[in-house]
Amino acid sequence: MSSRALLAVALGLSTLVGGHALADEGMWPFNRLPKAELKQKYGFEPTDEWVRHLQRSSVRVGGCSGSFVSGSGLTLTNHHCAQDCLTRLSTPAVDYFKRGFSAKAASEERVCPGYEIHQLAEITDVTARVQQATQGLSGEAFHRAFKAESAKIEKACATSDDLNCELVSLYHGGVYELYQYRRYRDVRLVFAPELEAAFFGGDPDNFNFPRYNLDLTFLRAYDAGKPALTPDHLSVSKTPLQPNDLTFTSGNPGSTERLRTIAQLQYERDHQLIETLLSLARYRGFLIEYGKRNAEALRVSKSELFGVENGFKALHGKHRALLRPEFFAQLEKSERDLRRRVAQNPELAKQYGGAWDAIEKAQQDLLALQPDLDWIEAPGAPRPPWARTSLFTWAKTLVRGAEERDKPNEQRLEEFADARLPGLTQRLLAPRPLDPQFEIAKLAFGLSQLREELGTDHAFVKQVLGKASPEELATKLVKGSRLGDPAERKRLWEGGKAAIAASKDEMVVLARSIDDVGRKLRARYENEIESVLTKNSELVAKARFAVYGMTSYPDATLSARVSFGTVRGWREPGKVIPSFTTIGGIFERATGRFPYELPKSWVEKQKQLDLSTPFNFVTDSDIIGGNSGSPVVNRQGELVGLVFDSNIHGLGGAYGFDISVNRMVAVDVRAIAHALDVIYDADRLNEELAGASQK
Amino acid sequence: MSSRALLAVALGLSTLVGGHALADEGMWPFNRLPKAELKQKYGFEPTDEWVRHLQRSSVRVGGCSGSFVSGSGLTLTNHHCAQDCLTRLSTPAVDYFKRGFSAKAASEERVCPGYEIHQLAEITDVTARVQQATQGLSGEAFHRAFKAESAKIEKACATSDDLNCELVSLYHGGVYELYQYRRYRDVRLVFAPELEAAFFGGDPDNFNFPRYNLDLTFLRAYDAGKPALTPDHLSVSKTPLQPNDLTFTSGNPGSTERLRTIAQLQYERDHQLIETLLSLARYRGFLIEYGKRNAEALRVSKSELFGVENGFKALHGKHRALLRPEFFAQLEKSERDLRRRVAQNPELAKQYGGAWDAIEKAQQDLLALQPDLDWIEAPGAPRPPWARTSLFTWAKTLVRGAEERDKPNEQRLEEFADARLPGLTQRLLAPRPLDPQFEIAKLAFGLSQLREELGTDHAFVKQVLGKASPEELATKLVKGSRLGDPAERKRLWEGGKAAIAASKDEMVVLARSIDDVGRKLRARYENEIESVLTKNSELVAKARFAVYGMTSYPDATLSARVSFGTVRGWREPGKVIPSFTTIGGIFERATGRFPYELPKSWVEKQKQLDLSTPFNFVTDSDIIGGNSGSPVVNRQGELVGLVFDSNIHGLGGAYGFDISVNRMVAVDVRAIAHALDVIYDADRLNEELAGASQK
Repeated sequence: MSSRALLAVALGLSTLVGGHALADEGMWPFNRLPKAELKQKYGFEPTDEWVRHLQRSSVRVGGCSGSFVSGSGLTLTNHHCAQDCLTRLSTPAVDYFKRGFSAKAASEERVCPGYEIHQLAEITDVTARVQQATQGLSGEAFHRAFKAESAKIEKACATSDDLNCELVSLYHGGVYELYQYRRYRDVRLVFAPELEAAFFGGDPDNFNFPRYNLDLTFLRAYDAGKPALTPDHLSVSKTPLQPNDLTFTSGNPGSTERLRTIAQLQYERDHQLIETLLSLARYRGFLIEYGKRNAEALRVSKSELFGVENGFKALHGKHRALLRPEFFAQLEKSERDLRRRVAQNPELAKQYGGAWDAIEKAQQDLLALQPDLDWIEAPGAPRPPWARTSLFTWAKTLVRGAEERDKPNEQRLEEFADARLPGLTQRLLAPRPLDPQFEIAKLAFGLSQLREELGTDHAFVKQVLGKASPEELATKLVKGSRLGDPAERKRLWEGGKAAIAASKDEMVVLARSIDDVGRKLRARYENEIESVLTKNSELVAKARFAVYGMTSYPDATLSARVSFGTVRGWREPGKVIPSFTTIGGIFERATGRFPYELPKSWVEKQKQLDLSTPFNFVTDSDIIGGNSGSPVVNRQGELVGLVFDSNIHGLGGAYGFDISVNRMVAVDVRAIAHALDVIYDADRLNEELAGASQK
Repeated sequence: MSSRALLAVALGLSTLVGGHALADEGMWPFNRLPKAELKQKYGFEPTDEWVRHLQRSSVRVGGCSGSFVSGSGLTLTNHHCAQDCLTRLSTPAVDYFKRGFSAKAASEERVCPGYEIHQLAEITDVTARVQQATQGLSGEAFHRAFKAESAKIEKACATSDDLNCELVSLYHGGVYELYQYRRYRDVRLVFAPELEAAFFGGDPDNFNFPRYNLDLTFLRAYDAGKPALTPDHLSVSKTPLQPNDLTFTSGNPGSTERLRTIAQLQYERDHQLIETLLSLARYRGFLIEYGKRNAEALRVSKSELFGVENGFKALHGKHRALLRPEFFAQLEKSERDLRRRVAQNPELAKQYGGAWDAIEKAQQDLLALQPDLDWIEAPGAPRPPWARTSLFTWAKTLVRGAEERDKPNEQRLEEFADARLPGLTQRLLAPRPLDPQFEIAKLAFGLSQLREELGTDHAFVKQVLGKASPEELATKLVKGSRLGDPAERKRLWEGGKAAIAASKDEMVVLARSIDDVGRKLRARYENEIESVLTKNSELVAKARFAVYGMTSYPDATLSARVSFGTVRGWREPGKVIPSFTTIGGIFERATGRFPYELPKSWVEKQKQLDLSTPFNFVTDSDIIGGNSGSPVVNRQGELVGLVFDSNIHGLGGAYGFDISVNRMVAVDVRAIAHALDVIYDADRLNEELAGASQK
């Protein structure tokens, strides 16, 4: 689901006391694959060339993953990863969620506004440089030095707009690496099935298995107006995938917390997850009913609803995992073991012994700051509903960006650093259709919640609302803003501080008036809390290396990783879940009613289909949100599947991996080829996948 | 709030290790007032006559409290306690929430359909009888014997339809008492202000203080078509209430859990409260947006929304209290102390030592049963949204009632026992306007949630939904049911099993088809879990008596109690909250926009009002949901206020009482008299309150 990227922003403890991963566990950086273990367990030793080819065939698309599947930039990812493109291109008259999209020729491929595809080119270790820059510092000084060094390193790397560079923190600051990505800024839509086929079973079946989803979209990377040349790409396997086959999954898992301290997990369990879930639940109820206003209201809101429902289910599963007493006790035992070993060694105790308590203290400080931080500044996702309008997001970026870009690179808020500006500009200026009614409804709903959460008498609430009702203010803001027009955003972006100061756009006026309050909260968070967490997490990481050695994998951080695992089902009380479903299964499950409704194209072609074709399958690979769209390859490095989900047990994967029941869910390439052939008559695409050059 | 009754159904641990209440803590049964402590601390010793008068002047109205305030049955309670009456009497053209209601003569007083007023007449100890009946039994045998004895005792007491008898369990089975109530079945609406005055500040200000709410309604108990004679009633005080004055509050607190075991509180904290809150949050978002469909949709749904918002805020506060580590640690310490003392005494250890573990085991069993129980049978409130339609509730009562009434009294489900049938019949057959669109929307929303919670492949979900979408099924059920007509309900109720079997009413057909599944779940709950909890809670209670003596108060159980406390504000970080507000304050806080909008009547009369008149006040009395509508009296037993809320800190009151910040919020009688006089020209009412006979 598109909002699995939700998971990618927020917040680690190995399930292993020894910090040493069990076979099939782990999201491994390309340069840290456990080759010895692979050889021992599977008799398979990937060559450097095998690894390099998989790395360069894999891509990142927004908060999702994908892969090049032809030499001409053809990219395979999930339907739910491209929903934002479908939303931007759809109109009341032409709804690509309903009818699907299929370009019969290259000329019909349509630009996905704001989309980028990133291919990981190089990894460079910069640990010493970063740690030296912050040596001996703490609080605000630590944060400034860290930010400045990070901006410097990234800027020196991003030598052209075709490159994107990110400082990646592994093991929570134990290791810093610079990831340089080739950046494709012209991404076009090639093919998408109907939503009913991509998301058959909807929210009720989400995170479940057996499944029957053709959750795919083909995009294409362009370069200078032409299909990009992508010599590194995956070939579709002609060897039938079987139960117990070894597979590899390459992608960008967003966030795990297996190396976090107990104080951090308690905070998440007892505060953060609860409040986020409650907010999502409420917003969800609103969205469900909003979609019943009329057909257009449903069309413009459904993508948002899918995202919220997906995020809710994922976070709810995470929360339930933390609430399992035996599970949490295991995490506590693991931390006790590490802390005991550190305490027993005077040298380690002196260097690292205080880190856990410092983290706990920072979490307590965060508890007091959290309401204001969440509801006013909201540095991370999920954003508060009142700020979930594009208009406000644009206004905030414009107002802050004008001021930040006048500062030296090293002193800016990180999202405005030189190395990040090209991507930010691309997203800001990309066209996006807006439905004013939906914007007003969301904003009014959210402003009402803001008042409730902070209280009617909170200075910020009084400043924003004054004597207006949430509905009045929302209407005034949306109707009084021209930011829906990309040209106006461009004018204000390029006009800088003077243009912002002169603007009478209601949304800009609001963003301007609350910018200072938000900045102060963010500074407090960064200087008093984040810096403490970053610094002390680094100490915990070093303590772990000192005690156990660097034998395990780092927590996921939305950077490129490889997972591996075998094709196999699992057992539930009283039943065995098989590893494959077939195309025939979807027809058995269909009721003709949403979300079990088949597209007309499928109903019409049912008789021509080979119903025994494998459709979806599961493996015991260790993945998490952000892996959506990941390619699944066999030992030969050939494409056998497309990841789109995990099962319900996998939702606890943020905190630990349970190989007995955690499963990754993927679309089988045989179903893709068969559907393209029989249902969609997409010969051009099938030929390109089969290795023919693009017509 | 009306749905504070929500709190009254669900689920103790004294904050006191010694089980001995601090002054001002406690919700005391009328026959167990801590007179010695009152005398010691306040120099005030209530006479038996003082207590008897307060008891007989106090009443129960639904899940709320109230008091007789004239010799002619005039009853004072909260506006939010009479909202269901206002809903039933309002029409699209005449909305009593908007315009208020004021009967200028007795003939204009309107029957509140289904309403009853209960006055506690007698209390009889039946502990020995109940405990003897279940001696040596466990599981299903225990449950049957308990239910049979309870039905027998209540039936023997309820010798006429004018009496209502309830077996009340105190100290979780440590003591059983029979409460006999005088039952007034003809209740009429006399006066209600506009919602804007009653609920000024709405949800944002709910559970907050300073407040400015005229949250009152006057009802009248009738007897044989005439105003009931109520010689025991409260006189309005002419002595001005002052800070630090001692007050008494008489009412029916719904539920506290101060005597529950840690295993029970953990269950509530980690499972039950979270799931309930998430469900309420989602339903709330739906209701907010539903009310925006049009003016009529807002009118028919707002009372439900207020109830849900109130319940959400109350339960959220409860949950946050349980999540405070130091608070929970205190509860754990208290249990450890009791268990240690029990373990140290071989005799006590033998009799009671196993009770805590038995309760913990039952809670674990409940965890597995909970989803089915909640979403299919839902024995308690809050009911799942899919069953929140009146039509379904009626159908279920009709179907079960037909079968149960054919059984011997002692073998019936408790709600159909002879002593309870009169009240049940009154509620079932009372007219209630239905908005089919709202019923369909609620049902569709809830059925969709049912499918999600239990899963598409759950046998019950398949049975109920079949291939239909939630919307289709909801529409079919609502449009195919005639149960909205009280005459049809009467026909089916009186027709018994034959009429139910012959009915083709869609809602009856559904209720009939799922009755068996629901009954089995309920039987499993009652026999395997509830009976274990009841039996072992009784053992814990006896252990507590054996160790500490019976010096404390029992947990609240929606039975008549007295709390006492002094008028005083409290301190928040950086500020002092004073004990009184004035009428002038409402005009300062008003914005002209919901929920800070004043009724026209108030705006027009602002200049005639004495703005310094005390409006709302707080005391440190120990109350909880169910106390809404309670009278507040001074040492002379005269009415000085009307309870309508607690402050936000009071929400943790379910688990313990913190006198430093827990406060009860009440309307001052001076504001009532002044508003009736100046704003509402309700001379007739003011004269009756002043002691004149009714005109």
